[in-house]
Amino acid sequence: MSLIVQKFGGSSVANAERVFNVAKIVTDTYKKGNNVIVVVSAQGDTTDDLIEKAKEINPDASKREMDMLLSSGEQISIALLAMAIEKLGFPVVSLLGWQAGFATSSVYSSARIKKIDTNRMKKELDKKNIIIVAGFQGINKYDDVTTLGRGGSDTSAVAIAASMHADLCQIYTDVEGVYTADPRKIPSAKKLDEISYDEMLELATLGAQVLNNRSVEMAKKYNIELEVISSLTCKPGTIVKEKAKMENTLISGVAKDTDVARISITGVPDRPGLAFKMFSKLSAKDINVDVILQSIGRDGKKDISFTVARGKGKEAVSILENYLSTIEAEGVLYDDKIAKVSIVGAGMESHAGVASKMFEALYDSQINIHMIATSEIKVSVLIAEEDADKAVSAIYDKFFGNDK
Amino acid sequence: MSLIVQKFGGSSVANAERVFNVAKIVTDTYKKGNNVIVVVSAQGDTTDDLIEKAKEINPDASKREMDMLLSSGEQISIALLAMAIEKLGFPVVSLLGWQAGFATSSVYSSARIKKIDTNRMKKELDKKNIIIVAGFQGINKYDDVTTLGRGGSDTSAVAIAASMHADLCQIYTDVEGVYTADPRKIPSAKKLDEISYDEMLELATLGAQVLNNRSVEMAKKYNIELEVISSLTCKPGTIVKEKAKMENTLISGVAKDTDVARISITGVPDRPGLAFKMFSKLSAKDINVDVILQSIGRDGKKDISFTVARGKGKEAVSILENYLSTIEAEGVLYDDKIAKVSIVGAGMESHAGVASKMFEALYDSQINIHMIATSEIKVSVLIAEEDADKAVSAIYDKFFGNDK
Repeated sequence: MSLIVQKFGGSSVANAERVFNVAKIVTDTYKKGNNVIVVVSAQGDTTDDLIEKAKEINPDASKREMDMLLSSGEQISIALLAMAIEKLGFPVVSLLGWQAGFATSSVYSSARIKKIDTNRMKKELDKKNIIIVAGFQGINKYDDVTTLGRGGSDTSAVAIAASMHADLCQIYTDVEGVYTADPRKIPSAKKLDEISYDEMLELATLGAQVLNNRSVEMAKKYNIELEVISSLTCKPGTIVKEKAKMENTLISGVAKDTDVARISITGVPDRPGLAFKMFSKLSAKDINVDVILQSIGRDGKKDISFTVARGKGKEAVSILENYLSTIEAEGVLYDDKIAKVSIVGAGMESHAGVASKMFEALYDSQINIHMIATSEIKVSVLIAEEDADKAVSAIYDKFFGNDK
Repeated sequence: MSLIVQKFGGSSVANAERVFNVAKIVTDTYKKGNNVIVVVSAQGDTTDDLIEKAKEINPDASKREMDMLLSSGEQISIALLAMAIEKLGFPVVSLLGWQAGFATSSVYSSARIKKIDTNRMKKELDKKNIIIVAGFQGINKYDDVTTLGRGGSDTSAVAIAASMHADLCQIYTDVEGVYTADPRKIPSAKKLDEISYDEMLELATLGAQVLNNRSVEMAKKYNIELEVISSLTCKPGTIVKEKAKMENTLISGVAKDTDVARISITGVPDRPGLAFKMFSKLSAKDINVDVILQSIGRDGKKDISFTVARGKGKEAVSILENYLSTIEAEGVLYDDKIAKVSIVGAGMESHAGVASKMFEALYDSQINIHMIATSEIKVSVLIAEEDADKAVSAIYDKFFGNDK
């Protein structure tokens, strides 16, 4: 007998018909003799509707009360899914985050799971119950309800799989798995049978939002095998694991991220620690910095360029402008008409020339590269936003197309 | 410094505007130097909407999952009210039933409060927080969410007032207090300044649904002073307490209840215990019996008549028909075209002739009385349903009108 954890997102339980579709998947798994623990998100637009209600009353509501409010969404969906499973005639019990034993840090709205007390879940499995757990939520040391932040249900599922030593953790979505590129843009994009944690992590940070990043990190840490699978077709999806079977290609995907803006600080004196101080000002405001480029300018001064999420761009600029005189820099430049295009693949570790193949594709398409960043399994370039789709196509064709 | 418990029903928090109206009442009370604990129900039609959702999926859902579902309604309203109070600039914390310490019996959908662990609420009051508690809910010994049944928020409020030794428990509603008769029917009906627990209990059982009955019983048991007050006008309402100031009338109210059906068992042998057995069959199915009349029939046989809630009428009849041969009775008669009209008043204990004054009023209006039941402070009559409104008017005029 295996223990399988299954996670369903909000659109998978958006209405009664979809709820029964999920109930069918869950009970089919149970009928095969498996123990099943299911994690669900709030139905469809419930979370957005609740946020609207809150904004109408108090746009600056405390995060504690926001968590109290938003966690009700999952409470509704677990109860409804349990009712559907009862209707199909199977033993089932729904559990809120705290009932399932989720102890989190105290940071409201983006709490981290600290520990799962598995007693209750084990007891329910002993009773042969299917367990439905409210994703995205837990309680902190004050016995207050916390949420894990958007996408947190993926993390809930992986955390349960880790603490209960599950054999498999299935993440059901609306797509059939992880693709080599966005299939809506590149019709020839193909589904991967397997992908490694590291590749998946790089893809996730690059805007291919199939899986929440923290959930992949956790799966890697506890070596939990994940399957990304469609709740509509239930065809075998993509397995995410440590040693993914090498595909017959050098890279596993091309991704585009347009939620990015570039900031350049010009004329920074060449003294140790100035860059560190600058970035710590930003991180104090929860602004994450990506792709950093430092160039030697005139008179021993430097230009420092980096990217931030586009929504944080204006805030970052105003923080830096206040700080300019302290670091004796000359100016701040801002550009949000850019995009980041990346290729990811464990294959490039052992194959030289992957990066230059990418640059060649861009050169062939007359696309100008602003900045380049590389890691062991990733190459990212910053280009003009208007060139982004053309760039993805060109790179894709170069690696996967007929002219490769 | 006083501790005041305030309870607001679903219509009082139905939308953002009403939520702020409640926030204003609460913070005005707090500003006067009081500690305030607030109990709220789910917003407007939330509970009915959730029941609809459940029915669409599984009309026979387990009560456990229904409680899980329905308790989310209060979770939403406490968070929104807390946000409104934050907006007004006051310290506030919302608490779910289990966080406020509500331990209940295990019966889902109609659990009874067994104990309130007041530690958390005391801690929050020490921090000078206004506390918003989700009414209607608690947890049982299995750590599962339970609800107290419809109207349970009144009981939550009184239970908090009792366990926290509050100085006053205010029940805010859409009416200005307890009236001598339904003011929509009898325009001259007047609001009572005070009423005793017993009178309030009799009025509540008679269909004047201002207060949930269990809450009044609990208030009486722990001697908690209640105030029924309008959340729209906030004018002084009706105080419910042990020794209510005698009004200048013999009775404190006239009430009509049309949710009633009469059942008669004819030709029951005159043997001890038969009636008891019959009624225990009904109570085993949660069917409560009211106004019982036993008459001596022919041949040493008896007729036993009684009333039940109209919704339970058919079920009661079919239970009794199955049982007829066992008790050797002759038949079951059923009539649901009846109404119960009652007068209530502590005054009648010490004044003879109150009942006959009521009968005189009915006689004057040519209304036929089917059955009569009396207690120390109540007289009820069963009459034809079509005569009910006329009867209430006639009785009201006799006691309160110009011709008294």
